[in-house]
Amino acid sequence: MNFEQVRIVLVNTAQPGNIGGAARAMLNMGFTRLYLVNPAAFPTDRATWRAAGAGQLLETATVCDHFDQAIADCHLIIGTSTRARRIPWPLQDPRTCCQQIAAEPPQRQVALVFGNEQHGLTNHELHRCHQHVAIPANPAYASLNLSAAVQVLTYELRLQILAQQNKPPLPPAPEHPPDDPPATSQAVENLLQHLERAMLGSGFLDPAAPRQTMTRMRRMFSRIRPDEREVQILRGFLASTEKSAKPR
Amino acid sequence: MNFEQVRIVLVNTAQPGNIGGAARAMLNMGFTRLYLVNPAAFPTDRATWRAAGAGQLLETATVCDHFDQAIADCHLIIGTSTRARRIPWPLQDPRTCCQQIAAEPPQRQVALVFGNEQHGLTNHELHRCHQHVAIPANPAYASLNLSAAVQVLTYELRLQILAQQNKPPLPPAPEHPPDDPPATSQAVENLLQHLERAMLGSGFLDPAAPRQTMTRMRRMFSRIRPDEREVQILRGFLASTEKSAKPR
Repeated sequence: MNFEQVRIVLVNTAQPGNIGGAARAMLNMGFTRLYLVNPAAFPTDRATWRAAGAGQLLETATVCDHFDQAIADCHLIIGTSTRARRIPWPLQDPRTCCQQIAAEPPQRQVALVFGNEQHGLTNHELHRCHQHVAIPANPAYASLNLSAAVQVLTYELRLQILAQQNKPPLPPAPEHPPDDPPATSQAVENLLQHLERAMLGSGFLDPAAPRQTMTRMRRMFSRIRPDEREVQILRGFLASTEKSAKPR
Repeated sequence: MNFEQVRIVLVNTAQPGNIGGAARAMLNMGFTRLYLVNPAAFPTDRATWRAAGAGQLLETATVCDHFDQAIADCHLIIGTSTRARRIPWPLQDPRTCCQQIAAEPPQRQVALVFGNEQHGLTNHELHRCHQHVAIPANPAYASLNLSAAVQVLTYELRLQILAQQNKPPLPPAPEHPPDDPPATSQAVENLLQHLERAMLGSGFLDPAAPRQTMTRMRRMFSRIRPDEREVQILRGFLASTEKSAKPR
């Protein structure tokens, strides 16, 4: 499965801005194939403005008069739906639905279909879909903006396609820059001993009192897992407090 | 963990429409606490229009002059980030990050922080965050619209909070209406036998040829798992083809 097998189909879109917002959302998630069925207005300045860096998708969009033209060559058609229907259709949440899409073999064409902002997809359109998908929303206010719905579903589909391709969602980010490897256990031990000396030397720690303080410090550094540079900074500071201390 | 523990903090938002779009996205996902730090313009007609049914969130939003005011009473602060930093901060994908948030005990206050559309969060603001979260986006065009980013993260957080509360993402949808239970195995067997009789009777099926056709039909009905009404419709149709057949 790859991103080029998926088309986003917007049917009877009323607000030109939503076409631009949907194009941007798609491209942000790596999808480029936009189909517009009978849009109220297209192209428009508003759509181009909302598309921002995804203007190219508006130029290459396929505009159709009828829904059936947009899906004729598709093998799997997913319709977005919020309303309960008289004859219920198989209804999935986005994660389950996108797992199924991502399992499609190469060359199979998949359509993700979004209806009009006010009325959604018609029964005719919904009946042409193999599955219906609903975004789990607040029951008290469940109607997402059209481009927001495109964003959620393309986000889920991106995650599932990357997982199916054995790729991580984010490129692995080093927790430490290459020149600052995590400190060794011995380096952290030395830091803790230095800290204890400095705490004793400054009079902060009473050698006669229980050693709870050092246990807490040990636990904190264990959680922090400092890198070599951080240990170096802390030890430098400890040394300087020792040097600048008044004779006691 | 519950939805009221989470606040959405928008810092230095430039486009008034994005404040409205973010309010709508939040409420769609069940979050109601919006903080605005030094917005370029607020309130505005544009924000109210984009908020649609979430106008109430704009009226109850907390407006602050400085970022620190918006997060002073928070226990866990998550900053959204797209840029690589000179000193890398722990960076998570939305799913991992929202799992961590959803594991917070009750009463802990959580802030999800979004920066300016052009510049994101400043280093000062990012350094006040415990974690940074990045939405896995198309590396060639990774900059999401602000309200789209709010939509993705609140969607993930909704899923994780519902999971933590042992609630399903969508209310369980019956695959069949209550008056149409799935057909029994015997009813489907009777249908298959009826179909075979009708296919033989019409001359479509040659009794001398291999039985591949009926195996394929059996496999299809096994996949379909028809309900009682569907079996009834199909058997009625088979009976009527038998009745209306010309004598052979």
